[in-house]
Amino acid sequence: MQRTAPKNALYAQSGGVTAVINASACGVIETARRYPKRIGKVYAGRHGIIGALTEDLIDTSKESRATISGLRYTPGGAFGSARYKLAGLDKNRTQYERLIEVFQAHDIGYFFYNGGNDSMDTAHKVSEIGVQLGYPITCIGVPKTVDNDLPITDCCPGFGSAAKYIAVSTREAALDVMSMARTSTKVFVLEVMGRHAGWMAAAGGMAGEKAGDSPHIILFPEIAFDKPQFLAKVKKSVEKYGYCVIVVSEGVRDDTGKFLAEGGTKDAFGHSQLGGVGPIVAQMTQEAFGYKFHWAVADYLQRSARHIASKVDVEHAYAVGKAAVEMALKGKNAVMPVIVRKSSKPYRWTIGEAPLAAVANKEKQVPRSFITADGFGITAACRRYLLPLISGEDYPPYRRGVPAYVTLKGAAVAKRLRSKFEV
Amino acid sequence: MQRTAPKNALYAQSGGVTAVINASACGVIETARRYPKRIGKVYAGRHGIIGALTEDLIDTSKESRATISGLRYTPGGAFGSARYKLAGLDKNRTQYERLIEVFQAHDIGYFFYNGGNDSMDTAHKVSEIGVQLGYPITCIGVPKTVDNDLPITDCCPGFGSAAKYIAVSTREAALDVMSMARTSTKVFVLEVMGRHAGWMAAAGGMAGEKAGDSPHIILFPEIAFDKPQFLAKVKKSVEKYGYCVIVVSEGVRDDTGKFLAEGGTKDAFGHSQLGGVGPIVAQMTQEAFGYKFHWAVADYLQRSARHIASKVDVEHAYAVGKAAVEMALKGKNAVMPVIVRKSSKPYRWTIGEAPLAAVANKEKQVPRSFITADGFGITAACRRYLLPLISGEDYPPYRRGVPAYVTLKGAAVAKRLRSKFEV
Repeated sequence: MQRTAPKNALYAQSGGVTAVINASACGVIETARRYPKRIGKVYAGRHGIIGALTEDLIDTSKESRATISGLRYTPGGAFGSARYKLAGLDKNRTQYERLIEVFQAHDIGYFFYNGGNDSMDTAHKVSEIGVQLGYPITCIGVPKTVDNDLPITDCCPGFGSAAKYIAVSTREAALDVMSMARTSTKVFVLEVMGRHAGWMAAAGGMAGEKAGDSPHIILFPEIAFDKPQFLAKVKKSVEKYGYCVIVVSEGVRDDTGKFLAEGGTKDAFGHSQLGGVGPIVAQMTQEAFGYKFHWAVADYLQRSARHIASKVDVEHAYAVGKAAVEMALKGKNAVMPVIVRKSSKPYRWTIGEAPLAAVANKEKQVPRSFITADGFGITAACRRYLLPLISGEDYPPYRRGVPAYVTLKGAAVAKRLRSKFEV
Repeated sequence: MQRTAPKNALYAQSGGVTAVINASACGVIETARRYPKRIGKVYAGRHGIIGALTEDLIDTSKESRATISGLRYTPGGAFGSARYKLAGLDKNRTQYERLIEVFQAHDIGYFFYNGGNDSMDTAHKVSEIGVQLGYPITCIGVPKTVDNDLPITDCCPGFGSAAKYIAVSTREAALDVMSMARTSTKVFVLEVMGRHAGWMAAAGGMAGEKAGDSPHIILFPEIAFDKPQFLAKVKKSVEKYGYCVIVVSEGVRDDTGKFLAEGGTKDAFGHSQLGGVGPIVAQMTQEAFGYKFHWAVADYLQRSARHIASKVDVEHAYAVGKAAVEMALKGKNAVMPVIVRKSSKPYRWTIGEAPLAAVANKEKQVPRSFITADGFGITAACRRYLLPLISGEDYPPYRRGVPAYVTLKGAAVAKRLRSKFEV
């Protein structure tokens, strides 16, 4: 009796990476390796969907157990990620057809796509087109985004660690500012990511615990920036506490919907203002009151800070990778594992599932009930939501003073198609 | 037989604070508490020398053993610091006289001044004026600065932790950039502190270990910025590796000695450029080659990041605090404990001493032999120097997802002088 060889799997990372996206990869690969009769090899797209389209695949079976295990504590996207959105089926059917052609050539039966909203849309379409082209493929989304803006899931793997980084950094910088305020900096601004949703800005609020603690002001994309109210709050804080610590989301807009960071300021050569919104709001306080200011822009540091990752976030990230494989093996298709919160205190959670169609292209913003009435802080409800997500530490190993992150061999799978594909 | 009550001590923090200056305070206070027959109470100036001048003193004897012990893992300046340089004796003798007056009023026989170059100068002068005014006081400096620019001492407590933060952050952000470079950011710039000395920029070099590793370029204040050479190196890196990671010191200057950050750019309102040097050099690469860039400015985060402090740095910081008290008890005066390196591999160190007069107002820059011939990297000698300083982790305890740093009661010592002093 001849048994059919099991289908291979393709795993791909998509969009901005996080401190824990590789923990999801680890969950996918380690789990798939436990079912050698059901899943053949796990290939990974080099630079995500671009690798899939160009038949540039990494053979993860060439990576040692130790390396795959090390992905759990390695930030960034170890296989390479891409900002590459597949056009609609009507507009660019050839991309989808090419994907199916590559899948067929490498006997791929499972597609695990690790990304955010756009990626879930892509995974959903791949599942549909596979059926249409007579090559049905099991498509499972694996959620990931520091932005925490996916619907249905209680939170997104990647967010908790960025949130913890921001909360810790805000607390630490605030202690510095407090020490020096008497003779030096009065206003300190930390700019964080989150162009459309203020989850990361909200996380800054976890640096403080009681009235008067830093940050004194959080600026959310969800709340139109009101300069007079902002300045009044800065002044009050400086007069009461001696200083003012501000966490500002890069996505803050004025009441016409225009980003503050596109404030129309130009340098002497006519270039757009180089600084982000952090220096802009800091400068406002100096113009109004003469306060000495400092600002920091965390940028990629906040989404790659695996050294201070949240333990809960790492567990979530691994769990959605593992669950994706398990769902595929149960015959599910076009779904995404989600984090379901059973209780906040004590924190209890489980994995649920959501249809990709329900996740794709939807964004979850910070609800108004999570923001204080004045628009500058977080409420108790927000704290209850955030606390479990930043809880626990999960330190990577160190060597020579820095984290001993793993590097893949990244051995390429031999190409089987004669045609090239330009992306 | 009546015994003379032991003299009290005054401890004060000065200048920019660090992640471990409180570990030095911990070393001073815990050691002083072991000699109750020799040292009475340890008072601390609230906001450093300003507290001393205005008779605003904190009674550290009111703080519990647990709180003092917690200073070892609490960043910032728990007693408050100040940027306040006493004028020369000839110019403002009244400030020094006032200090002696306060010391006399509170029976202070020991002055421990925790700071950088300027502070060592002040401590030295206080020791001299005490003798002149007939109130001799034991003045011991306690070294501190993230800038690592004090002479004689092998390194400065505070630097190792900032260095570790920069090395770790550079490694992490580089993994992010590498993941995304195919379709996104090609040039990433991390701006670090160090206005006159490039020690912190050099620390970024510890993120990489072999040729091709990030950072590809380090810009030092010690090397005049050469734009064509810089751009050529960026281009080469992007073409070879797909991306370029740059660590830039805020103190980089052009060949006329002008800071790049003061490049003369103005916004539409005529304000000086808000951004630091990070965005400026990032923008240069876009203008020259059209590269998409990102930049981060670590600012206070790098000098307050106790969560990723170097264990060696914490040990140094505690040790110089402890040694300062022990030197005072041995009858030393106008000296500063220094770190003496006995061996780099394995790392062995001990405490030595330097006269304050030899430390004051001198700056130690990164030697040319620590910088590669092209001016854009660090040499093996530099790595040997830096490695021990960023070695080991010393994590603070956590509560509710963030470090459980201690807060002082900060009980004031009753004033004894009728006169007020304006600072």
